[in-house]
Amino acid sequence: MERIKSFFQRDRFAALAGIELLEVSPGYAKVKMPIDDRHLNGVCCVHGGAIFTLADFAFAVASNSHGTVAVAAQVSITFVKAARQGAALYAEAREASRGSKLASYTIHVTDQDGGLIAIFQGLAYRMDQTLEAVAADV
Amino acid sequence: MERIKSFFQRDRFAALAGIELLEVSPGYAKVKMPIDDRHLNGVCCVHGGAIFTLADFAFAVASNSHGTVAVAAQVSITFVKAARQGAALYAEAREASRGSKLASYTIHVTDQDGGLIAIFQGLAYRMDQTLEAVAADV
Amino acid sequence: MERIKSFFQRDRFAALAGIELLEVSPGYAKVKMPIDDRHLNGVCCVHGGAIFTLADFAFAVASNSHGTVAVAAQVSITFVKAARQGAALYAEAREASRGSKLASYTIHVTDQDGGLIAIFQGLAYRMDQTLEAVAADV
Amino acid sequence: MERIKSFFQRDRFAALAGIELLEVSPGYAKVKMPIDDRHLNGVCCVHGGAIFTLADFAFAVASNSHGTVAVAAQVSITFVKAARQGAALYAEAREASRGSKLASYTIHVTDQDGGLIAIFQGLAYRMDQTLEAVAADV
Repeated sequence: MERIKSFFQRDRFAALAGIELLEVSPGYAKVKMPIDDRHLNGVCCVHGGAIFTLADFAFAVASNSHGTVAVAAQVSITFVKAARQGAALYAEAREASRGSKLASYTIHVTDQDGGLIAIFQGLAYRMDQTLEAVAADV
Repeated sequence: MERIKSFFQRDRFAALAGIELLEVSPGYAKVKMPIDDRHLNGVCCVHGGAIFTLADFAFAVASNSHGTVAVAAQVSITFVKAARQGAALYAEAREASRGSKLASYTIHVTDQDGGLIAIFQGLAYRMDQTLEAVAADV
Repeated sequence: MERIKSFFQRDRFAALAGIELLEVSPGYAKVKMPIDDRHLNGVCCVHGGAIFTLADFAFAVASNSHGTVAVAAQVSITFVKAARQGAALYAEAREASRGSKLASYTIHVTDQDGGLIAIFQGLAYRMDQTLEAVAADV
Repeated sequence: MERIKSFFQRDRFAALAGIELLEVSPGYAKVKMPIDDRHLNGVCCVHGGAIFTLADFAFAVASNSHGTVAVAAQVSITFVKAARQGAALYAEAREASRGSKLASYTIHVTDQDGGLIAIFQGLAYRMDQTLEAVAADV
């Protein structure tokens, strides 16, 4: 799992948002985003784009955790509750199904008290290349 | 429409992503995101979170364009084609329906050549407060 | 819960599809659809519309289980695996969140062996009327 | 296009719902469902499952219109307005994107007056078999 972790350390937009990868195992990932000023929208709540980016990162790590590249195809996200400054948000991705070409993941975004912030349902398209091949190619 | 524009200039996560508001009218918005290094994921394409953030910003402006606050409730996004560095991406939001409490918007994300990158279908929940009231409150 | 059950026995499209309500409690519902010829599509698998209808019925029962009317606002469904003739399908709806106006539910559709067929994420809009008021009105 | 039409006449769940295929061309389909008693839910509006089934049928025809089999992978549907008895509903599917493996479609469901009832965004997974091969196989 160390090579998955190091592969995802190259993700610049996740770094920009201050997202940290906490845990990864086959079909699973847990990530964290401490909330500060940069994540806020015009009404002083955490921006939907920041919440999506957090969940999407957990989705990407979990769907790539089997060692071959998977890309997001379609995602649905439900925003359950507003998240405010000061909080840290967490996203946990679990694999719901995996075929040779398509795999689906459910990601729950929660705050530091375990309160549900968003539910993210993602479908990934699985390619044949390994992460190593893609990394070498870039 | 000037007050809508100035209200959304307070959005810090959109600013972090370098998103510019080009146009707004009732039920409509067009926004732009010039792509640079910060938007890339680990495999050197534009991060799904960045594409979502762009579309979500157009959605927020269009759904708030009637002067009362609307918040994202549920969104579905389909990623059609990878977007690469060097490109500028655009998102255009159009109102599909608007009731007293719920309104829905279709957002198309395209690249500088008009190629379709993503389709975003968003449902907003409309509140009673005006943007001014919220802005004063913050 | 008996009045919820009897209210939903009036659902004619669910009856047409042969759907049975097995269980209901606040925020929860379990339903069943024995599969026969009528549910098949042109390639002899269970039609996506039949699977959606089953999940949607569980969603409707669970979201109306608190005694006031709730209607579907936006739904995302992922089709995980084809379901074939001979099987019985089950859908179980669980409440993920509930506010005064919006509530969200996750519904899993499984076959008789517990294999996952589809995941359904539904957002309901909650109205003020009671089920009794609506029933009397019709 | 005649063979596409005849292939879809074998769809039994669509027949059960009284759906008619009006028009098909590459990447496009238009279908109709006259509303009667069987389509109603417990509160005397057209059941969400019936609306989904109509849209899904247009999606299936459009995504299979290129002659190879495509199956629904993930769908998002927004219910814009309730549809009542007496109406006829129409669904029109348009291809938004098509790759070798994935293709996406936007389907609008409207009533007889052109009023928008629902928006359906569907992602299809394209297989290698032709419709003829599948039909012969069944």
